[in-house]
Amino acid sequence: MKALKNNLHTETGWEIVERAFDPEQQVTSGSNFMIGNGYLGYRGTFAEEEAEDYVACIVTDTWDTAEGSEWRELCNVPNGLFTRLFLDGEVLSAYAGEAQAYERRLHLRQGSYHRALTWRSPSGRGVQLRVEKFASYANVHLLAMRYTFTPQEAGRVEIVTGIDGQVWSLNGEHFRTYTPFTEGELIGMETETVEFGIRIDVVAGLRVHGPQPIQTEIEQEERRILRRLTFQLEAGERVTLEKMVAIFSSNDVAHPQQQAVKDVNAALQAGYDALLAAHAEEWDAIWAASDIQIEGDLEAQLLTRFNLYQATIATPTHAPLPIGARGLSCQVYQGAAFWDQETFNLPMYIYSRPDVARNILRYRYDTLDGARRKAQRLGYYGAFYAWTSGKTGEELFPDYFFTNVLTGRKIHNHFNSWQIHISPDIVYALWLYYEATGDWDFVVAYGAEIAFEVAQFLVSHVYFKMDKDRYEFIRLLGPDEYHENVDNNIYTNYLARFALQKALIIFERMQKENPEALKALLGRLGLDTGTPEAWRDIVERLYLPQPHPESRLLEQFDGYFQLEDITPEALRERLIHPEEYWGWPNGIAVETQVLKQADVLQLFALLDDAFPPEVMRANYDYYEPRTEHGSSLSPSVHAVVASKVGYEDEAYRYFLEGSTIDLYNASRKVMSGGSFLGGIHTAAAGAVWQMIVKGFAGMKVVGDGLYFAPALPASWKALRFKLVFREALVRVELTREEIILTAAENNALTLPITVGEGQVLLPAGARASLDL
Amino acid sequence: MKALKNNLHTETGWEIVERAFDPEQQVTSGSNFMIGNGYLGYRGTFAEEEAEDYVACIVTDTWDTAEGSEWRELCNVPNGLFTRLFLDGEVLSAYAGEAQAYERRLHLRQGSYHRALTWRSPSGRGVQLRVEKFASYANVHLLAMRYTFTPQEAGRVEIVTGIDGQVWSLNGEHFRTYTPFTEGELIGMETETVEFGIRIDVVAGLRVHGPQPIQTEIEQEERRILRRLTFQLEAGERVTLEKMVAIFSSNDVAHPQQQAVKDVNAALQAGYDALLAAHAEEWDAIWAASDIQIEGDLEAQLLTRFNLYQATIATPTHAPLPIGARGLSCQVYQGAAFWDQETFNLPMYIYSRPDVARNILRYRYDTLDGARRKAQRLGYYGAFYAWTSGKTGEELFPDYFFTNVLTGRKIHNHFNSWQIHISPDIVYALWLYYEATGDWDFVVAYGAEIAFEVAQFLVSHVYFKMDKDRYEFIRLLGPDEYHENVDNNIYTNYLARFALQKALIIFERMQKENPEALKALLGRLGLDTGTPEAWRDIVERLYLPQPHPESRLLEQFDGYFQLEDITPEALRERLIHPEEYWGWPNGIAVETQVLKQADVLQLFALLDDAFPPEVMRANYDYYEPRTEHGSSLSPSVHAVVASKVGYEDEAYRYFLEGSTIDLYNASRKVMSGGSFLGGIHTAAAGAVWQMIVKGFAGMKVVGDGLYFAPALPASWKALRFKLVFREALVRVELTREEIILTAAENNALTLPITVGEGQVLLPAGARASLDL
Repeated sequence: MKALKNNLHTETGWEIVERAFDPEQQVTSGSNFMIGNGYLGYRGTFAEEEAEDYVACIVTDTWDTAEGSEWRELCNVPNGLFTRLFLDGEVLSAYAGEAQAYERRLHLRQGSYHRALTWRSPSGRGVQLRVEKFASYANVHLLAMRYTFTPQEAGRVEIVTGIDGQVWSLNGEHFRTYTPFTEGELIGMETETVEFGIRIDVVAGLRVHGPQPIQTEIEQEERRILRRLTFQLEAGERVTLEKMVAIFSSNDVAHPQQQAVKDVNAALQAGYDALLAAHAEEWDAIWAASDIQIEGDLEAQLLTRFNLYQATIATPTHAPLPIGARGLSCQVYQGAAFWDQETFNLPMYIYSRPDVARNILRYRYDTLDGARRKAQRLGYYGAFYAWTSGKTGEELFPDYFFTNVLTGRKIHNHFNSWQIHISPDIVYALWLYYEATGDWDFVVAYGAEIAFEVAQFLVSHVYFKMDKDRYEFIRLLGPDEYHENVDNNIYTNYLARFALQKALIIFERMQKENPEALKALLGRLGLDTGTPEAWRDIVERLYLPQPHPESRLLEQFDGYFQLEDITPEALRERLIHPEEYWGWPNGIAVETQVLKQADVLQLFALLDDAFPPEVMRANYDYYEPRTEHGSSLSPSVHAVVASKVGYEDEAYRYFLEGSTIDLYNASRKVMSGGSFLGGIHTAAAGAVWQMIVKGFAGMKVVGDGLYFAPALPASWKALRFKLVFREALVRVELTREEIILTAAENNALTLPITVGEGQVLLPAGARASLDL
Repeated sequence: MKALKNNLHTETGWEIVERAFDPEQQVTSGSNFMIGNGYLGYRGTFAEEEAEDYVACIVTDTWDTAEGSEWRELCNVPNGLFTRLFLDGEVLSAYAGEAQAYERRLHLRQGSYHRALTWRSPSGRGVQLRVEKFASYANVHLLAMRYTFTPQEAGRVEIVTGIDGQVWSLNGEHFRTYTPFTEGELIGMETETVEFGIRIDVVAGLRVHGPQPIQTEIEQEERRILRRLTFQLEAGERVTLEKMVAIFSSNDVAHPQQQAVKDVNAALQAGYDALLAAHAEEWDAIWAASDIQIEGDLEAQLLTRFNLYQATIATPTHAPLPIGARGLSCQVYQGAAFWDQETFNLPMYIYSRPDVARNILRYRYDTLDGARRKAQRLGYYGAFYAWTSGKTGEELFPDYFFTNVLTGRKIHNHFNSWQIHISPDIVYALWLYYEATGDWDFVVAYGAEIAFEVAQFLVSHVYFKMDKDRYEFIRLLGPDEYHENVDNNIYTNYLARFALQKALIIFERMQKENPEALKALLGRLGLDTGTPEAWRDIVERLYLPQPHPESRLLEQFDGYFQLEDITPEALRERLIHPEEYWGWPNGIAVETQVLKQADVLQLFALLDDAFPPEVMRANYDYYEPRTEHGSSLSPSVHAVVASKVGYEDEAYRYFLEGSTIDLYNASRKVMSGGSFLGGIHTAAAGAVWQMIVKGFAGMKVVGDGLYFAPALPASWKALRFKLVFREALVRVELTREEIILTAAENNALTLPITVGEGQVLLPAGARASLDL
């Protein structure tokens, strides 16, 4: 068993194993050991724990505004797995008595959680405990738990298990009612949200295997419905409880209570093992498409799979719903999509599970109306996507987000109003999808409307400088959020032009190939065939900062190089309070060149061939030491760009930084600017795929084929993954000496693949090996 | 004697008389009783006082940066009038013993200061003291003092008098050397400034009248050169000292020491009375042109003359130098010109002493190069005048001005970079001068270059919105400094158009009348005859916010009406610290509709006929209760606009507020945002003329003549003043019933004058009376 950091271990790279419990890491380990399925996320806490231990079960599509708050966020629903064990009245707890042979384990391969220990109570009695659970992928509404205990001494054991409605919520109370009920042998609790009156039903059923309880009672406490089972056991007698919990909301089905009852009864009928098998089969399919194998570096292997796992369970696949910036690990960032979704999570799906990618883009189509309303509210038109996008695409981000910890006053952040790159980012993602899949039908049906509306938004935003004969974007906030209110942010300007170019291409191709669809779309949008002339004019005359002829540097925004030049470390010395927000309006970074993340490098990560390598290298050298990495999105971008410019060690260092943000709690900021920011950094998890495939393997699309420029970390013996390109599947195996490409038997396409100077055409079933 | 506030009195409206000394008012009374002549300002402190009592003698054209500071400001030079009296070793002081029959008096009529008291020492000895002084207008380098004392008991009296170089300085040490010297019977001190090495010489000479000292010694202390005179006197023996001080710097003459010695010797020769007579004659001429007589309201009479006096002594007339925002009363605001100069001080001179007005505008011509350099430094071209303009027009305003009193960090204010209205303001002033004087030669020689360069600056700043087919000004700070970073500030947009219109008019008239001068100018500026097309295009398509069709409201800037609507009083409750700065970036007013001053009203005050009265009234009603008057410029604007819209009581209330800012210390802010802001509010002083002439008399220029719409305050029986219009002098006498106009005998012009419906043509020497 390989020891990692923070009491964590792995055996095969398919599991994380915790050997000691550290109460200080409660927020983090709760996230790391979580189970989920894109519908719900259930944190990896202990069955006997409650709100103060950050127990949570976050359910998607339950956006509602907490009472007296301005935050519309997902609900933390009553905890259906709540279970306590009493040894002659002494309650089993991680905080009392003594734990022996403790182990908490997350099986990444099959998405299940295991906990085992022998607990010795303060008075000296012992019990062996084993808890297993999973959030089913076969039925995403289902949580299943198997709770097995064996007392070491004869005596009375009580189990109190039921539904705990005493849940915590980040921004206040989400439920106006908590209604416990029983239905046959099942217990349940129905809550109703305060804003929209969404009904959420949590129903639990129980089977006892082995010795049966001598007594069973239903108990109710405040917001709890519980079943108390009293056992009289001999030493060594083992009891197994199978607990099945179903969760439905009135946003899912018309009669959530009925459906939950039905599903729990079916689950009890099937039993834990059968349900687990069905669930594991789904994971088999996911991993078959998504797994990345690393040989020679077990830690990297585990980190990669851990992040792929977290990115996967954060992604709703049952409906077009957003991927939350913290997935379903907590309520932070409102369970809503940011640009993270397209920029950091989507690429993995585009090249491994394009159906999931399509679902994500479909979500952006479905939320166009929200984006239109936002544009209008702010004096623009077209589609200005929400910075924080829930189900409808309404802007969920509040005008006042951070708190000035020195004054207690709220800070007016402009992430929602000035960070306009979100709209072109979505067109970039659309194009990435189209380029990799060739799915023109999707573009015609959905993508064109997105692209045209984003183009119109850009028309409504851009300014023209008569005397310089150029367009400019004014008052922006780039990905580097420490610098608000800047002009001609290089990332924004380049992405905006990209989006306008693609809108033009789509328009022109539709004129030729889909004239009726185009006509209908223009009619619906109130545009005419002259509209694209405005897009073309901006494409041709938009100001695009160019590399300095000598230094080759690109300026992040107008005037950036005039700002104070100081290192992040020296700047940090100026903090008065450790939680101070570094950005707008007067954080310590605002008037300096210190970046939260580097927009120029972000641009390089997206636009593969826009700048020559020597420009990328000069800018990497300049911006890297000035970047504070205050964003979890930053290290992965550095890893990808470091790979591009040939900095292998640096790329690997950033790979480790980016992939350990959650597992090793490497993110320095659970609190920032007075805001709780705990939970899984979903985008960083998704970006692990990019660090490996775009970075170390150097993959990009060139023309109608794939291109590789591999640069494996020194310790890696081999790297293996699969890619889907235009419906053709190719298996990639990389060593330091060669790249082996294997096309699937049923590919319809012969794939052109370029590796440095070498090129192969890979027909179905073919295998090619190229020396590196 | 009429009692005013704060122990102040007046007899005739020509003097302020203080009857009791209040040490708490030291900063204020030092300013109020100051003497000066546009070259130097000498604060109205006591002869025996020193730095800690805010003694200061500020000399113009001595801009230099204090050691280790970023502040280029005027120097406080060694105090040549320093004089202490010892009664048998007990030093006379306002803080020890007892003062009887105390009086401090400022004679506004002749610009002289008097102090009288009988002082009883702690041990019970008495002395009668009388001190008179003035800063000569006949020779602006000269300070004269007459110091008379009469001991009440026989005994030894010592006088220590000399030059005190232990001066205070707002932002650190300005002198690298202090060199005391004697020259014949004179003593002197030469200092040399740290940045530019300006030599400043203060030379003092003394004559003793009456009993002569039994001993005279020269003494030196640190940075002091003193003469100790020991008298042995009988009770009631009176001694009079006449002390003459001359001040010259190497910016004034090549050999300042030589010149100062020469002038002091000449002054000693002439004697106090003769010098005073020559000085008073200059004041006679000033008052003959500038005085405003108010009958029936002695307080208003005194307030008016006090402010005219302060505005006058703050204005350099000996050379084209700026009027400091605090005049020469202290170093605050660096002795530099702001927009205050043109907008609040200039109008009085235009209509009463046009030669002084021309000198002020000439200063703006002389500083065009500084304005050009500023424009270039910030990425523009043309003339972007300094927000804080010293001798050369370089921007003196630092990027960091206020301090966040809650964190101790400096605040990045953008007064210097975003408050672009300063440039069109100067063109407005130029036009006001031209309109009132008809001085086309000045326009051709100087004004055209100012107007063209400002127009070019505006071209380089403005943006065009293609989709709205209009120009916009983005990222502004209007006169209301609580709202930085706004778009289409109404004041800025209207003034910018005004400036561009006038540049076009000047260009076109020069094409016809001064083609050679125009050609030369365009050549010098690198412009061609096509250049004005860009100005015309902006004039025609610039976005000018219009009154709402129903509410008639004008929006101060884009989005202002969406800000939180709260009263200044309620807002004030949110202060954590009383000295917090209310504005950028996160002061309490930033996100609210509370204004420091109202830009819409400021616009009404300048553009007489741009908006109909009902629009002005609706906007006055809206903006007045939302205005905090954090600026001393605000009350006068309210007074003028209140007069325009027929709110007579309100106009009078604001007149009192605006005219008592200094005399009654009504300015609430000696400290703001951690900055000392004491001293005379020169613009508020200058604005008293506007409140009366533009406000109560309702004067404006219409076509080629003058127009009046009088609305006298209820208590005023009569109001009299003179105006110069196109070199014709007219005396205006207003009562509530009639207006009497008398043209000077030697006028060349027949003046058309309109009063409501009535019109007269007033030839030289004519007198007309119109009923009101």
